[in-house]
Parts: sequence; structure tokens; C-alpha cells
Amino acid sequence: MSLGEFDLIEQFFKHSPQKVNQWVDVGVGDDAAILSIPPHTRLVACKDLLIEDRHFFPDDPAHSIGHKALAVNLSDLAAMGATPVACLLGIGLPESDPDWLGAFSDGFLALADSYGCSLIGGDTVLSPQARVISVTALGTLPLMQTGIRRDGAKLGDDIWVSGQLASAHLALSILMDELADPTGQLSTLLPALRYPNARVELGQRLLGLAHAAIDISDGLVQDLSHLLKASGVGALLQLNHLPIPVSARCFADSIVEQAALYGGDVYELCFTAPGAQRDAIGLLSQSLGLELTCIGVITDRPGVVAQRANGTQILLDVRGFDHFKGSR
Amino acid sequence: MSLGEFDLIEQFFKHSPQKVNQWVDVGVGDDAAILSIPPHTRLVACKDLLIEDRHFFPDDPAHSIGHKALAVNLSDLAAMGATPVACLLGIGLPESDPDWLGAFSDGFLALADSYGCSLIGGDTVLSPQARVISVTALGTLPLMQTGIRRDGAKLGDDIWVSGQLASAHLALSILMDELADPTGQLSTLLPALRYPNARVELGQRLLGLAHAAIDISDGLVQDLSHLLKASGVGALLQLNHLPIPVSARCFADSIVEQAALYGGDVYELCFTAPGAQRDAIGLLSQSLGLELTCIGVITDRPGVVAQRANGTQILLDVRGFDHFKGSR
Repeated sequence: MSLGEFDLIEQFFKHSPQKVNQWVDVGVGDDAAILSIPPHTRLVACKDLLIEDRHFFPDDPAHSIGHKALAVNLSDLAAMGATPVACLLGIGLPESDPDWLGAFSDGFLALADSYGCSLIGGDTVLSPQARVISVTALGTLPLMQTGIRRDGAKLGDDIWVSGQLASAHLALSILMDELADPTGQLSTLLPALRYPNARVELGQRLLGLAHAAIDISDGLVQDLSHLLKASGVGALLQLNHLPIPVSARCFADSIVEQAALYGGDVYELCFTAPGAQRDAIGLLSQSLGLELTCIGVITDRPGVVAQRANGTQILLDVRGFDHFKGSR
Repeated sequence: MSLGEFDLIEQFFKHSPQKVNQWVDVGVGDDAAILSIPPHTRLVACKDLLIEDRHFFPDDPAHSIGHKALAVNLSDLAAMGATPVACLLGIGLPESDPDWLGAFSDGFLALADSYGCSLIGGDTVLSPQARVISVTALGTLPLMQTGIRRDGAKLGDDIWVSGQLASAHLALSILMDELADPTGQLSTLLPALRYPNARVELGQRLLGLAHAAIDISDGLVQDLSHLLKASGVGALLQLNHLPIPVSARCFADSIVEQAALYGGDVYELCFTAPGAQRDAIGLLSQSLGLELTCIGVITDRPGVVAQRANGTQILLDVRGFDHFKGSR
């Protein structure tokens, strides 16, 4: 018997409402949880677990693993519009390796410092077989802000994505010898995989502007589907609008399209906003120096429909990276 | 080269003060961290990582692993005097195993519910080799309470311990075939190992009463030594005052004494309080129905000195369970 990640969470850990105490504003099921701390503050909390051979390779640079372990959590905070304030770090290592730890902590703390996100605690243990990294990030929202949730998308909203898609997945495919790289694009694509940006400033600026947001960790279609399901709506995507990096153009169109739709490890934000906000979002893009692309529209037809430039439409499979089903 | 857990934390992750933001009241180095959230609240946060074959056996009952994964975190909150409010859970499993997860979540959520500590989020991932469990617990303190820290012990304070010592270590030694159990004590000792109590109520009631507290996870002497070092003091322990369960009496005295002094997985609180609080602590013991035993006194001689009933004194080795040096 096999259960996917989301079934598992639903089945075993989504508490019945009466078991949730009065602090809990948003519990299991969004990018991060929100606790209300009257009179001024909401606390936003999230946790991601990274396992060697699953989320990173044993020979990945330790500095990049440190960066990424925190970045993926900051990305969850960003998807709620929260401001990072503190983090906790658990590390399990097969042996005490000062060189590895030194580089790891440099990568982790450099990113933490850049957001004023203090490392406040954690745990160091021996993990006999594989390296294990567990990060909890804590952020805040003003109490007047309920955060940007998954369930707020409205019929007719534009669907936006920050930055570019596909790079991390293409880099991973090359590293795993699943994709040939005759023109040597790996070095250009690799930073997206190893040093993802958490879109923290964007998330904060989207408060009051976006109706819903999610960070793309498992793939655009899969993560967008969670947002659509939570909001009770559907999506029509314009395939030729998907933001693809120049360095991807030397690969076959079908491979790049699949990478853009289903590739994980993106850590860009996908958000929806009413058409009336287009100018504001354009100004925001300029102000942040960050590409923000409208890739589609929210519809009342369930699922994700993709439209080609010639007008043909296809209903996309909601697959992508599932931690209990995917290949990596 | 080998570094112990505490060296690692000191070396790589104890941030210099200027890198800690204005929220952080207590950072790396105590049982839990404290964030100030004016005007009313302090948030207390801790994180423990549990790895299969290291912190639990593959065939331990999943229900008990679920209980213990949360209990060890609630114990850290208890040592600060905090009230649990929420927790996050990360699980890495080699395969999707609904039976195991069902029992695990029953054990975890039963304990969470008993403290009104809502599970608010987490992460489920595939861990190719071993089960990995990561828990973050969040609690609160009134802003007027700074929590019970490690560094508050004063010369002349009584040293107290809750509950009993040695049981978990004796049970583990029997399970690992390192100790014979001719009179069949395992079933009596095992609950201490598998279902430790987090002394949450005790911690809350010690606010304003105790000068310093720590939870005993790595062993009495080792954890007490952290408290002493942080407070700049020493301890004189009365060996014949150590609270030992009746079921331990059939083992050799020297084995039981070692288990009481150095055995880990205890999750009782060790705290110090001025002599003037003895009556209050006696009443607290009655009120909680929990054994509280005065086992020694804070001195100005560094280290932990143990005194036998006949008056002979020995300076104890500060060893015990170190995650990078110990046997389990």
C-alpha cells in the first residue's frame, strides 16, 4: 500500500477542529501555520525536513545545503507574507565533521543574517546512516493581517509566478544523467537548484494585494492544484507565458515545458490577484527587480487546464513530485 | 577528529550577540529559546531530532515513539516553566506505512491533546534508510516571567530532582543485553524509557520558586554540569539521597548508582531553589502527587562532588551520554 504525502497528512495529522486551541489561526495544511498572539502579533511557523540522498546529494557543497535548508523554510514564510524573525536547526550527522559543519553553518547563517532571522536553538545528534537536517522558521504578521493563504483565490483572478521556472529541475536532471547537456548549461542552471531565493520581500509586499499564494516546492501544477483545491476553483494557464530562462532554450521544448510545469525545487511564489492589481504588481516587479509574470487566470472549471499559443487546451495531470511516490 | 555535541553548538551555531535580533531573549544554549513578544507574551521554542537506531529501536512500539518524540520537547519547555501551545512535526519514513503512522500519530496526538498543544504543521518526507522524527514545540510565558534558566543557581541553593532516576537506563541496558534481568524487572522499568513524563505542571509551578532548572536528557551529572557551568557554581550531591525506584533494588548497587548519575532519557527536572523554599516545594510535591527530592546543595567548588553516607567525597567525571561520543 502506498500513500502520498498529502494523504498522510490528511489522514493522520489534520486535527479535528475541537482539538485546536484558541491560539491557532491556521493549522496543518497551508505553507505555514499561524498563531494569534493578541493584541499585536500573529506568529507564523513552518518546518521542513531534508534528508540526504533525497533532498540533497552527499557531495553537494555543504555551504549550499546550509543555505537551502533555511531558504526552503523562508519560502514557506514568504508564501504567507510573513517576516522571518527566528529559526531552529536540528542536524543529524553520521560523524562529527568540522569542515562540513563549518561550511554548512556559513551557508545557513549567511542567509539567516541577511533576513535578521536569528538562530535561537536546535539539536545536534548522531544519525548513523544519512545526514538529516530539520529547520523550523518563525515569522510574524501584524495582527491586522491574516496572511496570504491558499484558500483565497477568486474567479477571474490573474495567476502570477515570480522569477523563472524549470532551471532547478533541468540542473537536477543533468546531475542525475537523465538529461544531456551538450552546450554546458549546468553551471548557469545550478544556482537555482543549490541556492534558491526565498521571496520574502515579495511575500510581504503581496499582503493586501494578492488573494492567495503558495510557494512552488513540488512543481507548479502540483502546488497550484493545492491552492485551487483549497479555494474551490480551477485554472487556465497560457503555456507560452511560462517564464523560462534563456539557458533552457537549448533543450527540447517538450522537456523544458515539462520541467516548468512539473519540476520541483523552484521556491518561487505562485499567487493570484484581481485584474485591478495589474499595475500595482508591475510597479512591485520594478521595485523589487524581480520578474513577475501573469501565466493564467482562475476559472470555475476544476483542475489545471493549459492552453497552447494556437488555442488548443489540455487538462493537465496533477502529478509532480510526491515525497512518497516521486523519483527524487 | 571528534567533537561532542556541545562543542559543535558552541563552535558553529552560537551566534555573536550583534547578530541576534531584538526579539531574542534567550538564544542557543538553554533548554529552549525565548522570544519577547510585547506587551504580554514570551514565546518559548525548542526542537529535538530523533533518529532510528539512535534514539529509538526499529521495533519499538510506534505509539510509544510518537509519545516520546513530543514528550522530550515538552520536557524542554517544562524546564523553562513554559506552557505548551503548539507543535510542528517532521517525519521521514523509508516507506509509507499506515499502520505504523496510525499508531505513531495516536501516541503523539494523545499527549498533545492532554496539554492542549495543537499540532499546527510539519513535513512528511521519504527517508531512504532510517526513520527520522523532528519535533518543534512552542510554549508561552507571561512577559513578566523570564523563565527558569540554567544560569540562575546561587551558592547555598538546594538541588532538587523530580520523580526517580535510573529506570530508563536500566531498561535500555536490559533491552541491549548489557544487563541481566533475572527477576523480571523490565516490564516495570520500561514505561520510564518508552513513555517518559514531561514535567510541564511542575515547571510552571516552579516559576518564581526555583532559581535554575534543566531537564535530564543526557544524564543527571552531565545536565547538572551544564547548569553549574552556566551559573558559575558547583554541586555537592548526597549519593544516598538519589531517588531510585524499588524495582531497581535487585540490581547491584554500583550499577544502579551509575544509572542514576549517568543514565540518560530521564526527562525529570533538576532544579535549584533557596532553602527558604523547602516548605513550598514540599507542598508542591503533595499538590502534584510527584516525588521531589533534595539531592544536594550548590557550592562554590567547580564540578560535581558526590558524598557517600559515610562522608567520603569524590569528584565525579562529567561524562554521560554525548550524542557524538556515547554508545547510544
